[in-house]
Amino acid sequence: MILTQKYSIDPKITLVGAGPGDPDLISLRALKAIKKADVILYDALVSEELLEYAPDHATKVYVGKRSDDQSYSQDAINKLMIDYALNYGHVVRLRSGDPFVFGKGYEELEYAASYSIPAEFIPGVSSAISVPGLLGIPVTQQGISDSFWVVKGTDENGEISADLQAAAHSDATVVVLMGTNKLEEIADVFRKAGKERLPAAVISNGSMKDEKIIVGVVNTLAEAVQDSKIESPSLIIFGEVVALHPSFQPIRDSYAFVDGLYA
Amino acid sequence: MILTQKYSIDPKITLVGAGPGDPDLISLRALKAIKKADVILYDALVSEELLEYAPDHATKVYVGKRSDDQSYSQDAINKLMIDYALNYGHVVRLRSGDPFVFGKGYEELEYAASYSIPAEFIPGVSSAISVPGLLGIPVTQQGISDSFWVVKGTDENGEISADLQAAAHSDATVVVLMGTNKLEEIADVFRKAGKERLPAAVISNGSMKDEKIIVGVVNTLAEAVQDSKIESPSLIIFGEVVALHPSFQPIRDSYAFVDGLYA
Repeated sequence: MILTQKYSIDPKITLVGAGPGDPDLISLRALKAIKKADVILYDALVSEELLEYAPDHATKVYVGKRSDDQSYSQDAINKLMIDYALNYGHVVRLRSGDPFVFGKGYEELEYAASYSIPAEFIPGVSSAISVPGLLGIPVTQQGISDSFWVVKGTDENGEISADLQAAAHSDATVVVLMGTNKLEEIADVFRKAGKERLPAAVISNGSMKDEKIIVGVVNTLAEAVQDSKIESPSLIIFGEVVALHPSFQPIRDSYAFVDGLYA
Repeated sequence: MILTQKYSIDPKITLVGAGPGDPDLISLRALKAIKKADVILYDALVSEELLEYAPDHATKVYVGKRSDDQSYSQDAINKLMIDYALNYGHVVRLRSGDPFVFGKGYEELEYAASYSIPAEFIPGVSSAISVPGLLGIPVTQQGISDSFWVVKGTDENGEISADLQAAAHSDATVVVLMGTNKLEEIADVFRKAGKERLPAAVISNGSMKDEKIIVGVVNTLAEAVQDSKIESPSLIIFGEVVALHPSFQPIRDSYAFVDGLYA
């Protein structure tokens, strides 16, 4: 007699924010999801160390795209996700940072819903707050900054976003994601808002071993970044809170000296 | 013969963001710190389940303050933290959310530095992004919102903050923390900015079992919240992204109906 075993597949999708890069900044809840995954679809900026938590039988599929590698369109990822869920069961969609901060996380959940596949969302530690924080720059600080505004560098047409123009005129700490390749233009927006001397910093590979920070003011930042080599992923932060970073003190001193000469 | 053991104390402070409430939203890195704690100083909004990860010998000290319980001032917490570090070793300072988003986290790190005690910061999942996200409201969404602005409801004098006034005039998704007890006034700021019909929601106990969301528009939100009982902690979110929440559809339909009557 031959026993045939029938598997019934329970499709499920869990959209997970993996945090800014350090694999230990993932949440316990996300880890528990990974441990129950049948398939993991992961992005370029997600640490491969996280894949080691997956069960042995789990299929790991790299769907990452960096700017230079457009092999997987969002459409293709959506379809893969559904296909794997229907055929294998629990798909963990592992995205860097928090999937609802300029990610296509919401589209993926909508797509899952259109196939009536149960979906869960597990938020991540957002780079916008944590990357400056890990370097000792708080996005808010009593007496210095009462709010923070998180903006994408460019809109879908590659132009400086209208919200960034508005943000440059506000008193908020402004965190710009995906804007370093337009740094010159972005700094110009702040310059035109009369903020030539606003402290600002560019941080690349935040939370990771090869993390790098360049601190300056609006007027000098673009040049400083050009001199050093800054890699992707990176973010820009504008605001008086940046002056709390220890490497800002010599910059402040040099301005005080120049101001003294012309006083 | 009596053997006397000498301990040399290695003082250390780790400032940890515990996330929005669900104990499983803490990071792995934070968990590792808790497991090596000699003392844990924890806030009112931190889940007591997290204390179970601490070693048996660890002292757990509740320093929480809710608005009705001012027993521990920030000054007292700073002093306790130093005192415990010098006498017991590794102090984990466990704060809800992310300690750099309107927390006094930075002051605590500064205080530690003034005593030359080594300090580490571990960011948390911020309520501002994750609490709406867990309910299916992304803070950004292509074609709907290109940025989000996180503001405190009131300034240190209990007045509506100047940044909130500015935020109400922007196109950003606006997340207001610590503002629900001034909801009427805050809604009024948006009303005066011509945004009577902007979708908005109040969420209390986000990420926890007793989580609650009330969805409406600027004009109706305060009344809707008064009718139901909303508890602290809570946040308010203003923006077209709120319309993505399923309970917004009937509200949209009713406006469409009224508009039809007067067309």
